[in-house]
Amino acid sequence: MAGDHSDVWLQTSSFLREKERYLVVSHLHPDGDAIGSTLAVKAMLEHLGKEVVLTNESPIPPKFQFLPGCDRILPPTELDGCSFDGVVAVDVADRERMGVVWEYIPADIPLLNIDHHPTNDRFGTVNLVVEDAAATAQILYTVAKVMDIPFSSSLALALYTGLLTDTGGFRYSNTTPEVMEMAASLLRHGVNAGEVADRVIETMSRGQLALLQRGLSNLRFTADGRVGWIWLTRLDFQESGAEEDDLDGIVNYARNVIGVDVGLLFRETEGDKVKVSLRSREIVDVAELAHSFGGGGHARAAGCTLTGSREEVEPMMLERVNACLEGGRE
Amino acid sequence: MAGDHSDVWLQTSSFLREKERYLVVSHLHPDGDAIGSTLAVKAMLEHLGKEVVLTNESPIPPKFQFLPGCDRILPPTELDGCSFDGVVAVDVADRERMGVVWEYIPADIPLLNIDHHPTNDRFGTVNLVVEDAAATAQILYTVAKVMDIPFSSSLALALYTGLLTDTGGFRYSNTTPEVMEMAASLLRHGVNAGEVADRVIETMSRGQLALLQRGLSNLRFTADGRVGWIWLTRLDFQESGAEEDDLDGIVNYARNVIGVDVGLLFRETEGDKVKVSLRSREIVDVAELAHSFGGGGHARAAGCTLTGSREEVEPMMLERVNACLEGGRE
Ligand SMILES: [Mn+2]
Ligand SMILES: [Mn+2]
Repeated sequence: MAGDHSDVWLQTSSFLREKERYLVVSHLHPDGDAIGSTLAVKAMLEHLGKEVVLTNESPIPPKFQFLPGCDRILPPTELDGCSFDGVVAVDVADRERMGVVWEYIPADIPLLNIDHHPTNDRFGTVNLVVEDAAATAQILYTVAKVMDIPFSSSLALALYTGLLTDTGGFRYSNTTPEVMEMAASLLRHGVNAGEVADRVIETMSRGQLALLQRGLSNLRFTADGRVGWIWLTRLDFQESGAEEDDLDGIVNYARNVIGVDVGLLFRETEGDKVKVSLRSREIVDVAELAHSFGGGGHARAAGCTLTGSREEVEPMMLERVNACLEGGRE
Repeated sequence: MAGDHSDVWLQTSSFLREKERYLVVSHLHPDGDAIGSTLAVKAMLEHLGKEVVLTNESPIPPKFQFLPGCDRILPPTELDGCSFDGVVAVDVADRERMGVVWEYIPADIPLLNIDHHPTNDRFGTVNLVVEDAAATAQILYTVAKVMDIPFSSSLALALYTGLLTDTGGFRYSNTTPEVMEMAASLLRHGVNAGEVADRVIETMSRGQLALLQRGLSNLRFTADGRVGWIWLTRLDFQESGAEEDDLDGIVNYARNVIGVDVGLLFRETEGDKVKVSLRSREIVDVAELAHSFGGGGHARAAGCTLTGSREEVEPMMLERVNACLEGGRE
């Protein structure tokens, strides 16, 4: 972080007050925190009387399109002729994560980087990076408080959407008392928790459903039931008409079955590459396991890419997982 | 309610202070609110120095067995020889919902009835029925506050489990600001939100998985995609080794697909009876629809039982749902 802790909050506040025309950007394939944070910054800047342009390389997934202002998030090709004197990047760990949008940002324009990813490379002029925040929306909530910006219903809704998404619907270990207090406060500002959860979480695309159907019908368990795994072929993926995002969460079905400690999702990609997602409940540190194959992640959720046929990759990986279970930890 | 609002809280408080030996009961096939509330009352009474016996007709589902004290919930057959001078019934709408436990309770013993079901028939000597509480655990949270009982980590965990279950993991429309504030406060008293959600929500029995696999492979949509439905035969149910509870949530997969307004689950039971669960997103009032078949429920979640073969029941019901969609509401 540039300067000490209070310094960067002051710099953030000044950045948002002192310019006239802002471009707000987030990462490509935006999730609820990326979209919610983009719209929250829009609401905050408009409250301050600023002109705001929003952009993202990727289209907004249908389930987020109920958020007011979503239609204002433009593809970068529509940025020609727009001019800005400041850029706000939210929920973006590095320039590359913006995709092609980065090429539309002149190098001499000051950039405010607000993010919670531990991998954030501080690419901004001002970097408000708070690694222990559950969501970028949680940082923006504090920014609004510090700047005394009132929580309009649209600001509250945008922030709640970010918080809900990045805590897995208040289910991940980042669900702290502060997260719940922020949620309570946003509900007091008019957010309808049931409605947002319904739209953001309790919603599935047809592609997602088709992939889940195939995934569940391919779910297998080891004889002792401690490992569950799903293999998805390239054909499964093509025939289901699924998008990359539609894979989210499928591996959890393998892990969530009672008695299972490690759930795996094997997914064929290009050539003879196989992407492996690993989830564990208590015993195996899957980050260490993934790391030994050149991947990475957290102790309970990690991933790596292997090379080989199903006959090679699947038994090898299962054997390694079993060895970890026997040994307690890898 | 007996007396005015403050009266019944005082009566509750006196009831919990003035006796020595309590029996705590809840409804059969207990969910997280029933079990959490049972254990919360145990923690509160033990703090007050009382003797406590817990009972339930049904075994505790494996996913709740991590809750401390769960092994103290006895089957009613083990109650012989126990004596009580007070009974506390939690999350029970009427005597019948206790199952056989009711027969073990002498008629002359005072009973405190703490519940949030609108159908509660006030079967207690003291009836603390708060219909707008999201969970019985929410009422008990207030009881503990009123009685100045400290939130030990086990009391907080039991209450959080009840709250989490009955709000569908903070996703239902009963997720009010007060619910979130209570959740925040319980997290401050040592509950680990990620761990509880992992055990209580992100856990599936093999039977549940098998039923979901069958359900998803039988999921069909009308041509316009506004209605999704699943038919489960008696054979599906038997072969999956599923319990009654394992059906929970399967109908939501039908409703949650983008474009669907009404999701249905048809389930063959005895003879030619078919149980129908209905879920709607926005347009159709499924309570009215279910009511027209002798069932009931809420506008967004309802159920009824039909009689007939699949060839009779399925097209008839789908036609009725379609008519409701055309007409806006039934
Ligand atoms: Mn984020
Ligand atoms: Mn309840």
